[in-house]
Amino acid sequence: MKALVYHGPGKKQLEDVPKPEVRDAGDALVRVTKTTICGTDLHILKGDLPTVAPGRILGHEGIGVVEDIGAGVGRFKQGDRVLISCITACGKCEYCRRRMPSHCEQGGWILGNTIDGTQAEYVRIPFADTSLYPLPLDADEDAMVMLSDILPTGYECGVLNGAVQPGDTVAIVGAGPVGLSALLTTQFYAPANIIVIDLDDNRLEVAKQFGATAVVNSTDGKAVEKVMAMTAGKGVDVAIEAVGVGATFGICQDIIGPGGRLANIGVHGSSVTLHLEKLWSQNITITTRLVDAVTTPLLLKTVVAGKLKPAQLVTHHFTLADILKAYDTFGNAGRERALKVILTNP
Amino acid sequence: MKALVYHGPGKKQLEDVPKPEVRDAGDALVRVTKTTICGTDLHILKGDLPTVAPGRILGHEGIGVVEDIGAGVGRFKQGDRVLISCITACGKCEYCRRRMPSHCEQGGWILGNTIDGTQAEYVRIPFADTSLYPLPLDADEDAMVMLSDILPTGYECGVLNGAVQPGDTVAIVGAGPVGLSALLTTQFYAPANIIVIDLDDNRLEVAKQFGATAVVNSTDGKAVEKVMAMTAGKGVDVAIEAVGVGATFGICQDIIGPGGRLANIGVHGSSVTLHLEKLWSQNITITTRLVDAVTTPLLLKTVVAGKLKPAQLVTHHFTLADILKAYDTFGNAGRERALKVILTNP
Amino acid sequence: MKALVYHGPGKKQLEDVPKPEVRDAGDALVRVTKTTICGTDLHILKGDLPTVAPGRILGHEGIGVVEDIGAGVGRFKQGDRVLISCITACGKCEYCRRRMPSHCEQGGWILGNTIDGTQAEYVRIPFADTSLYPLPLDADEDAMVMLSDILPTGYECGVLNGAVQPGDTVAIVGAGPVGLSALLTTQFYAPANIIVIDLDDNRLEVAKQFGATAVVNSTDGKAVEKVMAMTAGKGVDVAIEAVGVGATFGICQDIIGPGGRLANIGVHGSSVTLHLEKLWSQNITITTRLVDAVTTPLLLKTVVAGKLKPAQLVTHHFTLADILKAYDTFGNAGRERALKVILTNP
Amino acid sequence: MKALVYHGPGKKQLEDVPKPEVRDAGDALVRVTKTTICGTDLHILKGDLPTVAPGRILGHEGIGVVEDIGAGVGRFKQGDRVLISCITACGKCEYCRRRMPSHCEQGGWILGNTIDGTQAEYVRIPFADTSLYPLPLDADEDAMVMLSDILPTGYECGVLNGAVQPGDTVAIVGAGPVGLSALLTTQFYAPANIIVIDLDDNRLEVAKQFGATAVVNSTDGKAVEKVMAMTAGKGVDVAIEAVGVGATFGICQDIIGPGGRLANIGVHGSSVTLHLEKLWSQNITITTRLVDAVTTPLLLKTVVAGKLKPAQLVTHHFTLADILKAYDTFGNAGRERALKVILTNP
Repeated sequence: MKALVYHGPGKKQLEDVPKPEVRDAGDALVRVTKTTICGTDLHILKGDLPTVAPGRILGHEGIGVVEDIGAGVGRFKQGDRVLISCITACGKCEYCRRRMPSHCEQGGWILGNTIDGTQAEYVRIPFADTSLYPLPLDADEDAMVMLSDILPTGYECGVLNGAVQPGDTVAIVGAGPVGLSALLTTQFYAPANIIVIDLDDNRLEVAKQFGATAVVNSTDGKAVEKVMAMTAGKGVDVAIEAVGVGATFGICQDIIGPGGRLANIGVHGSSVTLHLEKLWSQNITITTRLVDAVTTPLLLKTVVAGKLKPAQLVTHHFTLADILKAYDTFGNAGRERALKVILTNP
Repeated sequence: MKALVYHGPGKKQLEDVPKPEVRDAGDALVRVTKTTICGTDLHILKGDLPTVAPGRILGHEGIGVVEDIGAGVGRFKQGDRVLISCITACGKCEYCRRRMPSHCEQGGWILGNTIDGTQAEYVRIPFADTSLYPLPLDADEDAMVMLSDILPTGYECGVLNGAVQPGDTVAIVGAGPVGLSALLTTQFYAPANIIVIDLDDNRLEVAKQFGATAVVNSTDGKAVEKVMAMTAGKGVDVAIEAVGVGATFGICQDIIGPGGRLANIGVHGSSVTLHLEKLWSQNITITTRLVDAVTTPLLLKTVVAGKLKPAQLVTHHFTLADILKAYDTFGNAGRERALKVILTNP
Repeated sequence: MKALVYHGPGKKQLEDVPKPEVRDAGDALVRVTKTTICGTDLHILKGDLPTVAPGRILGHEGIGVVEDIGAGVGRFKQGDRVLISCITACGKCEYCRRRMPSHCEQGGWILGNTIDGTQAEYVRIPFADTSLYPLPLDADEDAMVMLSDILPTGYECGVLNGAVQPGDTVAIVGAGPVGLSALLTTQFYAPANIIVIDLDDNRLEVAKQFGATAVVNSTDGKAVEKVMAMTAGKGVDVAIEAVGVGATFGICQDIIGPGGRLANIGVHGSSVTLHLEKLWSQNITITTRLVDAVTTPLLLKTVVAGKLKPAQLVTHHFTLADILKAYDTFGNAGRERALKVILTNP
Repeated sequence: MKALVYHGPGKKQLEDVPKPEVRDAGDALVRVTKTTICGTDLHILKGDLPTVAPGRILGHEGIGVVEDIGAGVGRFKQGDRVLISCITACGKCEYCRRRMPSHCEQGGWILGNTIDGTQAEYVRIPFADTSLYPLPLDADEDAMVMLSDILPTGYECGVLNGAVQPGDTVAIVGAGPVGLSALLTTQFYAPANIIVIDLDDNRLEVAKQFGATAVVNSTDGKAVEKVMAMTAGKGVDVAIEAVGVGATFGICQDIIGPGGRLANIGVHGSSVTLHLEKLWSQNITITTRLVDAVTTPLLLKTVVAGKLKPAQLVTHHFTLADILKAYDTFGNAGRERALKVILTNP
């Protein structure tokens, strides 16, 4: 079958590889019908993630159709249309039982990382009963792909950890796909103000269309000043970090009001400076989280009900055969005005 | 009256000053019968707290008897025996209503800071109805003094923010009076293991007597290694920082397990390094807090019921006249094996 | 001044009474500019509330302008435009500190009950600092009157106690003003389905306009059957009782799914049958609550932000002089298609 | 093998039946080494539970040794010593994922109910990976048997649902094994007062030994009066119902203070009267729950740490061969001063 294979930093190739098979009792073999590319895939290609070995098929998002199942799979059968979660959950270990399958002893984020992923015609999904979801009837398939990773990520790591309440003032730093996912799902809770901060005017424009009540281009280094002015000097109730660098985490620290919550989503490559000399007395909460994807059932319900419209995150479509082109587009997101790209396996 | 007056960095004096008077409708004038010295008072004397102006009477802890009240005081009358909270709460502002009077618009920590404090024969307490508590009948007075500050501090900033649960493994870094207060109150929640870490063997010995199930002297730089071994490499559920320097905050980061809570109590003078490159995916929560003292009624009940025995924190007694000697003892806590010193105004 | 005075069951009169005055340090005298009539006022007139003595001025909702203040009032001054809360909060007692001023030792619901109320030209408000709110600039005044009672009631007793979550299925039994307030505020949390049940087709039509995703006329006694069919036999996540009789509480019991929350808002005059023989194993939560009005600041923010539009609850306008006519209209709500009536004191 | 078989109301027999076998991939076959009798077994024998068909082997508690496993079992192997949970959890359905396996689509309470149970030499345990727990090394085996059902029941349905806080006043109505389990585990949270109410002086004496701070014999019908006197008329913070009849649920309603929580554990056979005409305004929470046994890992930790000593609940020992005698003793608990009886399969 065709698959996008990682061959070490900077190297990837669409090539023919053997079709995977059901191996363990809990496995499902899924024919991937739609997948996408994640910012994390770009990090892998830079060589930032040593857990990803050369030869690995990338990708941890997508939808498809069950082709085969192991003897222990009870909730899916051949022909079922499914959503693939980016988090593989054994459902049995201490962490899965604490509703924290991101740290599952045998699963977690393994797809396109320590086992082969979804940027392929077929993918083997371990612990299928607890790692796949039935697609709702009449589901918008593009929308569904957004539920594999970025929407639960924005919602769980940003919105739920930020404990957004009606009437709150929320700042989201970073308007990429994950920041925008936080923007969409923060509106579940009727905050009074949502301020989105980014360096890219196009993305800020998108943020406004997606519901931001104010946007700030931080290129001039005055984001903190502006947000403090908008909040009459009190700071925000919730600051969501959706970039993953020290500068943006710093903005979050500087704008958070007393009693506020700073929810980090960003994948950080370096340590940051935490200003405890100021913050020790500010009664704040800082959270980190690798997505657990335990809210996927909830998010599915909100999509079916029309409360959440994730398809608006999709800007480009390609076939799987054109995946290298899709990587180019997604890798130049600013220039291409790209958010998420959909890859179809016809 | 006699009072301990701050005269700038390194300078303090017990001197005669005018007795305070009721000034505002909400004020109570309290004759202080017992007070104590806080680590924060030593910080003030080092010149670390610019909000404290020369001429200020220090002290924010104590018990006493109401001598006079303003027209608006409804819950206390002359002769009432009272506990003085270190936090003055107007009860009306946004922060007081959010149960966060640490940031009260007119109050917060002002005693012995921006207004005259309790290391004196008399003290004026603004917003008395919401800043004083009736002493329980037959209360152990030494125990009560511990409820002004260190017990709510250990409990709210450490234990409650750490969300200690039955069966948890809790590490407390720092076995000074506040760390020991966290140690006493963490036992409200039946944790399975309580590991206390400090540089001082005497304090660790005290920690064992107070309920620590294991102690670690971190002088050899191997505290992290030892705690990880004790937890089979998983790390702790809750790490409570009760020192206020980068090194101890660093230990907390290194021993916290996935899904864990790091509750900072320490007053930090400098920024610290936060290892987000490791922690971003660890689903942890970091909290900071200036004590709100909203749990004082709860703590009073646990003392009356004998579930909490704060008098064990008191190691030395002096009269107010000997306060300079008391400062010497408390300032050399290691050598003197001092925890809290009680100053009596006979 | 003119005021609507209760003279025992069935008797009320608009009459001239002495203008109230500031009496205690915490009082404010407010000139009422707009008020309204509550279902509770009708109950009083039926003689259902023995706490209301003949001679009492009715009314516990409204907005106005501060005319005078007592010596202890610090947050308001003459001329301030204010929202009057139906709950008077001393801000100091145990219950106020637990954020439960409904049970305030000196306050709670006293306006138009144990002290004179707002259906008058002037009203005395005790504990003004914690019982009044500044009106936002440019506030829609009709909308503001809805914040005195019914919106916090629907939100706190129904939505918050029901712990509505995104994706939930919520049933609201009773589409009167309070049930509709629950309907408006439940949408803060993006439930997937909101089913409203009532006997009156007109009110169900209004419910649809206000955001119900389904409505059920329960006249035929088949409401339970219909709701179970709508939920594929699983029952609802949240059932909100907004009537106050056994039959509607019974519907709530019958439609609540395992793990569900039944939030009672209704004022009940009799005991009800609780089917513990069925419910003991259903992991449900039943709550009751007299509104605390602690969410008024939150609700004000959502109104200012346009997330909540309470003015749609207002169907009729009268002058205070015409209050008897207003009572007629409100007392025949079904026939008059009345929700809330606004009384203006020009 | 030998097993205690139910043959319809009033009829039970110890008889030879075929040894069960592993049937499904997730099954484990466990040789039962210790089991016990539950109050529910007595209910079954009275014919109260129509789900239990004649021919059924009773029993849903016990410990044992794994003899055989199905192909899908990953966390246990032959020879492992295990604790059997009274709740069988598939780990995959909606309810298991919501941490509510009491309502598991394929499990829940099925042992000794809809499938054969533990009062036998061997038992087949479906979904073994999520329904068994490894016994801690050196575990007190009698103590472990108490973790199958009554301790999680007392803790989850009573203490956790009651949200007991330090300093609280807790009343427990019913001092049978489950009420005493609530008594033991409520002490995890340092309540100030624990009042136990029962009709049996012996059980009240036991309650005192187990930590009750006050006991009330309700034979004289004055329990409510006495509890109200003990609480200065305010009522209790938490009332735990551990009997399952209208009279005891009525006591709980009468003693609950404003803002209090009423946690029902009792298995009710009839509806009860709920006094909403009084309670609608009291801001109370009533909960019901079939035990989920999701806190078994937590409880195991507290037993290992010595914070919980369940063996004190065991009053009598028998061999499995003497199970009829054991039923006699347990069935006459008052006369025999029996709490829990242990049955050993040598």
